[in-house]
Amino acid sequence: MTKIKRAAIVGGTHGNEFTGIYLIKKFEKYPALIKRHSFETFTLLGNPRAFEESRRYIDKDLNRCFLKKDLHDTTLSSYEDIRAKNIHKILGPKGNSQVDVIVDLHSTTTNMGLSIILKNEHPFLLKLAAYLSSINPLVKVCCAASDRESSFLRSLCELGFVVEVGPVAQSVLSAEWFQKTEELIYTILNYLDSSNQGTAPPSPSAVTVYFTISDVDYPRNERGEIQAMIHPQLQFRDYEPLHPGDPMFLTFDGKEIPYVGESTVYPIFINEAAYYEKGVAMCFTKKQEILLSSHDVIEMQPS
Amino acid sequence: MTKIKRAAIVGGTHGNEFTGIYLIKKFEKYPALIKRHSFETFTLLGNPRAFEESRRYIDKDLNRCFLKKDLHDTTLSSYEDIRAKNIHKILGPKGNSQVDVIVDLHSTTTNMGLSIILKNEHPFLLKLAAYLSSINPLVKVCCAASDRESSFLRSLCELGFVVEVGPVAQSVLSAEWFQKTEELIYTILNYLDSSNQGTAPPSPSAVTVYFTISDVDYPRNERGEIQAMIHPQLQFRDYEPLHPGDPMFLTFDGKEIPYVGESTVYPIFINEAAYYEKGVAMCFTKKQEILLSSHDVIEMQPS
Repeated sequence: MTKIKRAAIVGGTHGNEFTGIYLIKKFEKYPALIKRHSFETFTLLGNPRAFEESRRYIDKDLNRCFLKKDLHDTTLSSYEDIRAKNIHKILGPKGNSQVDVIVDLHSTTTNMGLSIILKNEHPFLLKLAAYLSSINPLVKVCCAASDRESSFLRSLCELGFVVEVGPVAQSVLSAEWFQKTEELIYTILNYLDSSNQGTAPPSPSAVTVYFTISDVDYPRNERGEIQAMIHPQLQFRDYEPLHPGDPMFLTFDGKEIPYVGESTVYPIFINEAAYYEKGVAMCFTKKQEILLSSHDVIEMQPS
Repeated sequence: MTKIKRAAIVGGTHGNEFTGIYLIKKFEKYPALIKRHSFETFTLLGNPRAFEESRRYIDKDLNRCFLKKDLHDTTLSSYEDIRAKNIHKILGPKGNSQVDVIVDLHSTTTNMGLSIILKNEHPFLLKLAAYLSSINPLVKVCCAASDRESSFLRSLCELGFVVEVGPVAQSVLSAEWFQKTEELIYTILNYLDSSNQGTAPPSPSAVTVYFTISDVDYPRNERGEIQAMIHPQLQFRDYEPLHPGDPMFLTFDGKEIPYVGESTVYPIFINEAAYYEKGVAMCFTKKQEILLSSHDVIEMQPS
């Protein structure tokens, strides 16, 4: 394992996710808080104009602008395309980045607690995530199961991951999540520092990881209008098992729509405000236990 | 008391407050649900373009566009100014409106429960609010203490009021609040209907009303940047007493800022996402008991 030399903490990739933005402001005012002996840490405010307007983005979602082909496409010139190219200059180039670690701070209207979202099963990140979840029950770990190139900001470097906290409304500053996220960041930085020095705290032998399977949209009519709501029994139940037959949606005239899959899934991002336009009511995941020593995957029995 | 002949139910005065918008869509699909014997009910979607963009407004807050002088000012031509003039044609003219009742449906990121917000102490609305709060503990009643002309949509007619529900994030459809609001609307319509027929259910002899005193902004620096968050102990404590010395804000470096007033107040709209730009962190109210028979006001002791 190469040593970490530079780590970037990014906030406000979405302008209405205030937790990360105000943490970045705090770290800019008190840089000693994120200074560690063995590596350099610096901060970046992802989308300052969207923050000024208290919106997720101005023209398009910045956190979908980091495909290599788009970063090199000079015809893409929306505010976020240009911003992505600038961030790419600071953190990239993608695949050979100037930073070893990116911590991208997000918040969500869903009950994701303190989620660590990985782009792949990198052993170092798995160990870090295992350690974080072992000392804080609010920490959950998810991982994209896709092999496709990611368009997310975190994909600019190999050890890039998202910290996703909630539930908190868009454009709201929550002291509770501010403090919990801040503490998590210090734990992450301390872990990186001690890891550099060969004194990383021991990780547990296994970690529970929620691997994304598929996105599920709201029921819609032919004009694309939503025809049912997240069922009250499913709202805020992120990471809990959804068994075949369990209620999933509720139509406006009160009819239950059950989950009709064949196996139990673990939905996350249930009723995220920003995903209505993306056609995502929730994201199904598979819960798996990963042994850290041998790196084996053991499918867990639904509880 | 003149009979109610026409009532308007308005939703989506703010485009990212989905509860009211999807209720309006339901009532448009099933008009029998809001049909009552003794009066006509119709629906209105306040800001359709803002809803399309899932934003509070396009150019300016529609719910601040209903001052008489602005409604008659032909130089005001933003999207919301024009929309306000159109709504004024349908519901107005202000002071001599074509409707007897306006129920304007809003949602909030704050813990307002099912709030009925009155523009004044009209005896009929007080009785209605008293009845609603007597049968549902989630119903709270607030009233603007100001004599100034209101710029709110509800001010177009004498019996106009807001139903404000939450906490719910902006741009999120919550089945729980959808159902609770729907039930409240039917109770209101039934009350109006029975009142027209002289068979209104008896109201309690008194009603608790929270009268607005003043708005309180977040602590800010000279550049207008927020310097402290709502204290975790105050978050979601709308309608609860705030005593002198109680923590109100928390700075980013962890210092508590207490409430320094001389008397107990009852804050509402604590940490409303849409009010950051208005310089409002919360709104102080005074809790009063109004006797409905004599219409006396009795100041309540802080609990």
